[in-house]
Order: sequence, then structure tokens, then C-alpha cells
Amino acid sequence: MTTASIAPGAAAPARHLLALDWGTTSLRAALMHADGTVIRETSSRDGILSVPAQGFEAVFQRVVGPWLQEFPDTVVLAAGMVGSRQGWFEAPYVACPAGFAEMAESLLWPEPGRRLALVPGLSMTHVEGAPDVMRGEEVQIFGALDALGTDDAIFVLPGTHSKWAVVQDRRITRFHTFMTGELYALLRHQSILARVMPADDDAPALTWPAQRDAFLAGVHAAGEGVLLHTLFSVRARGLFGHLPAEAQPDFLSGLLVGEEIREALSLLDAGGAGPLHLVCNALLCERYRSALDVFGLVGQAAADNASFRGLLAIARARVLLA
Amino acid sequence: MTTASIAPGAAAPARHLLALDWGTTSLRAALMHADGTVIRETSSRDGILSVPAQGFEAVFQRVVGPWLQEFPDTVVLAAGMVGSRQGWFEAPYVACPAGFAEMAESLLWPEPGRRLALVPGLSMTHVEGAPDVMRGEEVQIFGALDALGTDDAIFVLPGTHSKWAVVQDRRITRFHTFMTGELYALLRHQSILARVMPADDDAPALTWPAQRDAFLAGVHAAGEGVLLHTLFSVRARGLFGHLPAEAQPDFLSGLLVGEEIREALSLLDAGGAGPLHLVCNALLCERYRSALDVFGLVGQAAADNASFRGLLAIARARVLLA
Repeated sequence: MTTASIAPGAAAPARHLLALDWGTTSLRAALMHADGTVIRETSSRDGILSVPAQGFEAVFQRVVGPWLQEFPDTVVLAAGMVGSRQGWFEAPYVACPAGFAEMAESLLWPEPGRRLALVPGLSMTHVEGAPDVMRGEEVQIFGALDALGTDDAIFVLPGTHSKWAVVQDRRITRFHTFMTGELYALLRHQSILARVMPADDDAPALTWPAQRDAFLAGVHAAGEGVLLHTLFSVRARGLFGHLPAEAQPDFLSGLLVGEEIREALSLLDAGGAGPLHLVCNALLCERYRSALDVFGLVGQAAADNASFRGLLAIARARVLLA
Repeated sequence: MTTASIAPGAAAPARHLLALDWGTTSLRAALMHADGTVIRETSSRDGILSVPAQGFEAVFQRVVGPWLQEFPDTVVLAAGMVGSRQGWFEAPYVACPAGFAEMAESLLWPEPGRRLALVPGLSMTHVEGAPDVMRGEEVQIFGALDALGTDDAIFVLPGTHSKWAVVQDRRITRFHTFMTGELYALLRHQSILARVMPADDDAPALTWPAQRDAFLAGVHAAGEGVLLHTLFSVRARGLFGHLPAEAQPDFLSGLLVGEEIREALSLLDAGGAGPLHLVCNALLCERYRSALDVFGLVGQAAADNASFRGLLAIARARVLLA
């Protein structure tokens, strides 16, 4: 491992970090002092899907350009899909195991002399030969790990493509992706199951704890690895009045989250590993905690703003900051 | 069991059967002599989804009205989603086990004096308490069974909602539904996996046997009940060049069909039961045969026109025909 250093071409470490969490559907940015204090913060809908191929610089200037004029002694680190083939500049995946040092050394500096780097995603190959990838979540994991102050932990990042990641000795050693959130959205809005469900997720017919009961019934119904079959039961239960229309979205959510947990446990052997650290918003966290409880597991909310914390930790590992 | 009888209000058995297989997206019709000879046959896109709520009679008259004028001594049996709550008249589900006699006795004659009946679907309750249903497939199974001339068999009906059904003593004793085809369509066309696949299924970039290789690679990758995880591997394999874009649709198809077979075997204990009888078109049949072979199972194509044969057998069980 080479010694960490300041940004290429820079005379000295910077006084500020501009942390960008630039994903598929949103862009979040924070300008921080070297000590981690947040000075400016914003978020917008400028996810990479909405940015034309040559338009990243323009969006960047529009959203954070004024900050950089105000605080010129700043190094910029950008994580997420902005570093993918469809993003601004492609930062190739770094193979697991990887920790702060590997990430800091593998930063992509696309323009000589400019203090702007893309954080690479992580890749690994599973025992059966299939590759797996993450991009953006690794920074959240490093941020949550930094806040926890431990060396070993298992992180769960629920979402469109949920990630379960094992950290040993402060390095991500392996992870598995699950298409839970994307499958939920497809089935909830586009499948035959959607036909009898209420039209809109944003105005749920049920509120917690009635939602919770329907969700947990789904977790319990998740079964033993027969997802293609149990998914259809949502419709059949509805036909016979066992499951009212307004309870079906939460039941389906529970079915899929329960399946994810069962699959993850069979793949990760995470049973006796202490609490699972959940990196997500409070609502999803509550769902996963109650689902994990069904499996006899404890879920614990990780630190907020994990992305910004992770980028700060990576910048420090590279001595990019004064 | 009561004695079978002619159609309610009819003076004598009819000389002809008009068999309707009226599903979600299509309508197939055959006018047959009592001996089974097909006199007229047609199919159209008038599936129940395209028929307005009060429009079934008009579609019926447009498609088969002229036949009934030409052959007035005809009894009409209609199977499929036309007998559902969203169809023409609702024929309540009949609980398994059910054979020709139970189906014949449970026909719904919606209009007194009119020789037109709806065939009910089948329902059952699985051991874990979840209900399951089929509507239309039961007639195909009875037709295929009639053609086979055996009393016991396992039938596989691949499709949007695949069915695996166990027949004992000429009665369907239990069955399981799998959302294989619908999930394929959603993932193939609407998910993140679709983004790098060729645009159109109708003009596949690969032809058999290259398609077959990609399909079988998917079957082999189906894994041990970790579908949410293996689905994402399609994307990851693509990112690393392990799976070219044009092979991804067939790989995904194999992944899902392999998962269906594994789930069905775990639920039905169908391992030592002899050949599985496949009720589907030749293309799907070829796929399922090659996938079943991976599991050491033999798939055998069932008779063509199973729906029409099944409706004929049900009509005969009720002595509706001369």
C-alpha cells in the first residue's frame, strides 16, 4: 500500500471538502470544514438519469458552483452512479476486500490540476462465480462504520437494490445485492397484483400500526424460498377476502423483505453476528427492524448522513484535508 | 354425486358444442360435432381486458353468432377469465379435488332456457393457509388428461402465471401457481435489467441453439432459493462482460424457469412421478423440456387444443351432447 497523499497537483491539503452523493435519481451535496462541520448543504432532483451525456459540468456548476467561488480552497469527492459508465467520469470498480485506504488510493482524478475526484464502486465475485457490484453504498457503509467506531459489523442498506455487507477489520470483505425494492415497485404498480390495490403509495389507506400488521403478515408468509409461488398468493388471498385491498401493498412489502432476509441469512451466515446496522430512512428502518425481529435478529439504525461522513473519512485517509 | 343431465330447460342433448376459451387477452372458439370433429374454428384479440363491462354479448354475437344461426342445435361452454368477476358472468370457484363430474355439475347457466354455460375455475388452500386459484387451465388439464387416457399425472402449464397440477384418479387434487411469466415480462421490459437488453423480444438477437445456451446457463444459475439475489446477477454479469446484452433475455428466462422448477419440486414432491406433461406451445415446451432435463426430469408435450378437448369431455360428462 502506498502512502496517502494530497490531491495530485495540489500544493497542500484543502481546508474544505465538498461531498457529493450523486445517484440515479438525486444529487445531495454538503460543503464541510476539514473538521466535519457542515457549512452548506443541498439536495436536488438532478440524478444522473436526468442529466444529458455532456451536461454534468453544467449541473455541477449550477448546484455547487457558487459554494466553490465562496470557498475556493476545497477538494471535491463525488460518490454514486455519477462514477458509472452512464455518469460523468467512469471510476472502475475496486475489488473487495476494500477499506478506507483502498478507496482513497483508487480515487479517479479525471482532470489534471483540478481538485475533483470520483469514488469508485466495489465489486466482488461470489462463490458460484457470479459478480456483484455496489456504487454509492460503499461510502455510506464507510460513514456508518466510522460513526460506530468498531472494526467488524454487518450492514444492511435497504432500497431499490438492497445490499447486505460484511465488514471485517474495517474493510468490506463481501456483500450481496437483492432486487427487493425494484421488484416491489414493479409488482406494486405494474403487475396483476396492482389491479386491486389502492392507486397511490403516497396516500396509504392504512397507517401504522395497521400497516405494520399487514407488513408482518407478509413477512410471516414469506415461506421457504418459494417466492414465485408466494407472490401469487397476494392475489388469491384478495380474491377470497383474506386480505383487503388496502392491506395488500404492505403485505407484499413484507413478503419481499421477509424473502430478502431469509435469502441474506442463507448466503451470509449472519445469524450470530450481533445487531445488524441499518442504513436507511426512519420509515424503512422501522420496517426492517420489525421484520428482522421475526427472524430473531436485532436491527439498529446507523448514523444519519452516512454518505457525507464516509466521504470525509476517505478524504482524511488520503490526507486531502488540512 | 348427482346424475348428470342435459342442459337446464333443453328438451334433449345438443348435436353440437361451441367451445370457448375466453381468456384475459384472447378469445378462441371451436364449433364441434358431438363426436369431436371441429367444424369451425377462430381466434381473436377480444380478451376480457378489451371488452367493456356490458359488451360481452355483443362480442360473442360478432365472433360466433353466425355459427349459431347456421347450427342452432348447439350448446355453448365457455372457460377462462370470462367466468371471473371481471368477465361476462361470474362462475364461483370449485374446490379441489375436482374431476370431470364435479366440473360438469358446477357449470353456471346464467340465463334460463339458454344453452350457454360458464365453466368454473378451481381453488384450493395450501397447507400454510394461503389460497390458490386457476381459471381456464383446469379445462386444458382435463383435455390433456382425456387425450392421455391415464388416471394419474402431473401437468405443467407454463405461462404468465404457471400452474403445476397433480391429477389422481382423474381428479385434480392440488396445484401451485408461479408468477414466472409475468415476472419475466416485468423484468425484461421495465426493470433496470431491461436497459441493456435488446429492445424487442419479437426480433431476438440470438436464435436457437445460441438462445438455448443462454437459457440453460440461466437455469444452472438459478441457485438454491435466492431469487432476489440471483436476479441482480444478470446486471452484474453484463457489467463485467460475462453475459452479452443479446444473451440476457434468455438467461433471465432460464433463471426464472429454473427457479419455478426448483420451487415446484420443493412444494409438490414430484421427483419420482414419471414424465411431466407440458401444456403449452412448442417453443415454451422446448424450453421447459431442456430446463427439466437439468433437474433430471422428463417433460413431455401434451395434446394440442387441450382447451377444446377438455370442454368436450366436460360436456360429455354432463350428457350435454347427443
